[in-house]
Amino acid sequence: MILEIAQIDVKAGTEKEFEGQVAKAAPLFKRAKGCKAMSLHRSTENPSRYRLFVQWETLENHTVDFRNSADFAEWRKLVSHCFDTAPMVEHVSEVVHGF
Amino acid sequence: MILEIAQIDVKAGTEKEFEGQVAKAAPLFKRAKGCKAMSLHRSTENPSRYRLFVQWETLENHTVDFRNSADFAEWRKLVSHCFDTAPMVEHVSEVVHGF
Repeated sequence: MILEIAQIDVKAGTEKEFEGQVAKAAPLFKRAKGCKAMSLHRSTENPSRYRLFVQWETLENHTVDFRNSADFAEWRKLVSHCFDTAPMVEHVSEVVHGF
Repeated sequence: MILEIAQIDVKAGTEKEFEGQVAKAAPLFKRAKGCKAMSLHRSTENPSRYRLFVQWETLENHTVDFRNSADFAEWRKLVSHCFDTAPMVEHVSEVVHGF
């Protein structure tokens, strides 16, 4: 299992719109191959900064299957006008499950 | 509920040691006031980079209670020799629970 962490800085003033658009996009992720979970988290220290967490079965489910899909274009159409800068995307996998 | 995200870059070659030390530190977090979960995740793109995720009931449980505790000093003693740079810490809270 792979966790995609996308750090997304949005234009000041578009926070509520962005959150609404991400909620609207949830079905696109839900039907994506290998996609197991999706949630959006807002930064306390930088309120225009978010982390989108998406759980994928494999790295390729995100980087190949989803990114080449029509739903990826649809996702970007819903949210990209809110982006202040290009999102920074990284993938991680759990190595210590403390508790 | 608040999620602490600590981005930690470790010195090349110390990855396995760092992971072992974090596992050893789990009880320090488990007994911390308001601490609900802790896990360590390794980056796919940058294998010396980790994200430590810690769930806290409140921001102050981390920034006041934990950071002023003897267990925080103990935590740093266990892992800080592996740090390549100072960890970057941010707190987020969930605003959209997609699925």
